[in-house]
Amino acid sequence: MSAYTELSEYIAEVNDLLNTISILNWDARTQMPVGGTETRGKQLATLSAIAQERLTADRLRSLLDKAEAEVGGLPPESTERRSVEAVREASELFRRTPPQLTRELANLRSVAGKTWAEAKATNNFAHFAPDLERMFALNREFAQSIGYAEHPYDAMLTLYEPGMTAARLQTLFAGLRERVVPLLRAIVNSGRTPRTDFLEHHYPVELQRDFSLEVAQSFGFDLSRGRLDESLHPFEISFTRNDVRMTTRYNPRFLPTALFGVLHEAGHGLYDQGLPADQFGLPTGTFCSLGIHESQSRLWENQVGRGGPFWDHFFPRARQAFACLRDVKPGDWLFAINDVRPSLIRVEADEATYNLHIILRFELEQALVSGDLPAGDVPGAWNEKVQSALGLTPPDDARGCLQDIHWSFGGMGYFATYTLGNLLAAQLMEALRDDLPGLDDDARAGDFSRVKGWLNDNVHAHGQRFRAAELCRRATGRPLGHEALVRHLRARYAPLYGL
Amino acid sequence: MSAYTELSEYIAEVNDLLNTISILNWDARTQMPVGGTETRGKQLATLSAIAQERLTADRLRSLLDKAEAEVGGLPPESTERRSVEAVREASELFRRTPPQLTRELANLRSVAGKTWAEAKATNNFAHFAPDLERMFALNREFAQSIGYAEHPYDAMLTLYEPGMTAARLQTLFAGLRERVVPLLRAIVNSGRTPRTDFLEHHYPVELQRDFSLEVAQSFGFDLSRGRLDESLHPFEISFTRNDVRMTTRYNPRFLPTALFGVLHEAGHGLYDQGLPADQFGLPTGTFCSLGIHESQSRLWENQVGRGGPFWDHFFPRARQAFACLRDVKPGDWLFAINDVRPSLIRVEADEATYNLHIILRFELEQALVSGDLPAGDVPGAWNEKVQSALGLTPPDDARGCLQDIHWSFGGMGYFATYTLGNLLAAQLMEALRDDLPGLDDDARAGDFSRVKGWLNDNVHAHGQRFRAAELCRRATGRPLGHEALVRHLRARYAPLYGL
Repeated sequence: MSAYTELSEYIAEVNDLLNTISILNWDARTQMPVGGTETRGKQLATLSAIAQERLTADRLRSLLDKAEAEVGGLPPESTERRSVEAVREASELFRRTPPQLTRELANLRSVAGKTWAEAKATNNFAHFAPDLERMFALNREFAQSIGYAEHPYDAMLTLYEPGMTAARLQTLFAGLRERVVPLLRAIVNSGRTPRTDFLEHHYPVELQRDFSLEVAQSFGFDLSRGRLDESLHPFEISFTRNDVRMTTRYNPRFLPTALFGVLHEAGHGLYDQGLPADQFGLPTGTFCSLGIHESQSRLWENQVGRGGPFWDHFFPRARQAFACLRDVKPGDWLFAINDVRPSLIRVEADEATYNLHIILRFELEQALVSGDLPAGDVPGAWNEKVQSALGLTPPDDARGCLQDIHWSFGGMGYFATYTLGNLLAAQLMEALRDDLPGLDDDARAGDFSRVKGWLNDNVHAHGQRFRAAELCRRATGRPLGHEALVRHLRARYAPLYGL
Repeated sequence: MSAYTELSEYIAEVNDLLNTISILNWDARTQMPVGGTETRGKQLATLSAIAQERLTADRLRSLLDKAEAEVGGLPPESTERRSVEAVREASELFRRTPPQLTRELANLRSVAGKTWAEAKATNNFAHFAPDLERMFALNREFAQSIGYAEHPYDAMLTLYEPGMTAARLQTLFAGLRERVVPLLRAIVNSGRTPRTDFLEHHYPVELQRDFSLEVAQSFGFDLSRGRLDESLHPFEISFTRNDVRMTTRYNPRFLPTALFGVLHEAGHGLYDQGLPADQFGLPTGTFCSLGIHESQSRLWENQVGRGGPFWDHFFPRARQAFACLRDVKPGDWLFAINDVRPSLIRVEADEATYNLHIILRFELEQALVSGDLPAGDVPGAWNEKVQSALGLTPPDDARGCLQDIHWSFGGMGYFATYTLGNLLAAQLMEALRDDLPGLDDDARAGDFSRVKGWLNDNVHAHGQRFRAAELCRRATGRPLGHEALVRHLRARYAPLYGL
């Protein structure tokens, strides 16, 4: 047996453990009775410890040494070399993290999750502040342990967007903001606002589910290799490319939450269902980065799912499904679901203002990670930035700096990947249109097979074979930038707002 | 840290792994999309291998040696001594089983499960025969590996009913059969048969679910520590006493399947929810044996759930829930759900004939395990025994020797625990009635708290602290016998059939 094969088998078992952890988490969020919480925590801790032990084992190191020697002569972008390299990186990351820090972070995560929820429910930031302070301190310690080139924030990004840096994000985000702010001003100054009353109406949950799944299946989501459930916070998770699960949340009086939620998660799901089967169990068989993952959800939710051609096909079907839409004009519907207005809540934001929410979080996170901003000063800093970016003042912290769960689980650097996803989705869509003329006609016929096929070939099938930056360059012919997204936003909103 | 504490922590982690395996199995049977089958098999194999590795590790042996020395001075029935003893037994069982045999059995199980289902669907026993022959051969090998006193079947029983032997079962079952056969003859000769037309009617699935759950909750099943789902084959499984899951199968045109199914699984569920919390993670915190487990399901399903006092309370509610029962007389309902008639299918059998189905399987299994009966001769032997016990001839093997899944997963010895459960349920009910006068009045008021409380104290709370035989003696004051069940059957059927 070659060292590479032996390494592959070793890693496939670690992969089984990691996927099992995902199954336990999915179950906890969609099925588990509340009584199971404590013992589920123990099961997760045991499995995580076993996975970590295996990822830092001396036996893995020696397998890696041998496999590296074996594949050293292959081209740098061969799957074998990329796999060995990715395993080495993961192993080094774990080895460099002090076990004590891992335990402290795990404990703090479960405590902070609780205090954050309580603080949000009672609108009491002070209740969460000490845990938040500690969370950033531990993350700073983590950054010191694993090392970084310029900014401790770069170390945070390693977990979500390997290869990305704070400096590069600053450039990307500054370029984007510079173009979005005037666009937003023009929209607000246009004086136009859509009718939106029909969005809040009687939308039976069962019909919402059927309609959303019909759309997801038209995108190519395969229900024999996936399913859709309900959860408080929607998410997508995959245990293998053949078992991919989405969740959503239904509001029986408001359609967009579940509908665009499912389109979004289906985009994630299509990525996972399209990962390379022959690399199963290896890093090259898994997704490239969170930004790439998010580009897939945003592409289907926004680029496709909020577009005119899509609704040319689906609005007549929506009118059949939902009685309250019978008298709504297609143009009014399209305008309503593309309503742009500065608002306080990130997850409810439109495509134009969404990235401003991300940028302010990114700026605060850098200051928090570096220690320049004490956690106690977050509410003031937050509100100042919201005022400056959106012209609004949060009436309370629940609708301000307490709105998102991410910091409570230590997900610093996570937010940035949402905007990376938006940027790449727009860039991918331009490349798709260049490669495949007539895509709008496909959409008007409800046929998305060419879009899915192109993404399968140019994104999904590569798994982790290329880094995110290289994947972007190969798929779109250029490095990631803000121009495609700006062009998309202008093209979408100009006709609606008469710009 | 004492060796006992160290051992407990070690075993708690193994327990986490075993419970995780249960979660993966539950998910596979209730939620998983069909595409996940293959990769789920890999996840289960990896986790099983890790659990097995830990149960046979030298470190465990040395912990056991030290813990045994440490607890040696405690009373034999202290939880500490029983725990150490039970871990030693499990470890020895695994150590004595050749790894090669474990692998072969696991492979054969997945293959035989498939060939059995195909053979049943196409009514083609020959398609399953080679796997069945091999399954018994491997089980024979397993019996040789782990050892046994008298009959290789005793080794099979170790897995399901530790301490039980084929010889003891023969005595118990012979005594039961001797008394049941004349009772059954008297019933058939009575010439009475109930009206049963209303059992097959329009029973909306949602209402079946609500009604069944209402009953399960009246028994004391706690939905904050459990749930009910659907699956092809109903089962109950628990991941901890605080996360106990039941499944059932609904037939929209027939009420009894789901209703009595849920009552049955709720009995299992109440046992698992009542296990000792302070022994969590240790053998003493888990169920005693499959026979004891089955006694709980049978007690709630049959002793309670098919009784007159229970229906005095619940029939008026059933009539409210199901329109088709509005004109049915309570007496007709009670007779219908206690209809006795020899039939071919075990899972559809009444309380009187049920054990005859088990006894014939028990006899065939002994001959198959010892090698006296070649698998190819099973259909002939089966049909002969069905004719002799029930006076019927199966028209095909699908309704004969292919009806049950058990042999395809190697569950030889499993069937016997169903009749052990029936015997013990009757004996427990007599003890309950002795201890708690006026139980029928409780049932008429829909109050089952004293029954649950008694079972909590006398059965559930002991976990694995006593062997099954000792648990029976303590709870009922006498060894397990057939008399209580015979008395129950006579008391139940005499008024219905005018005996």
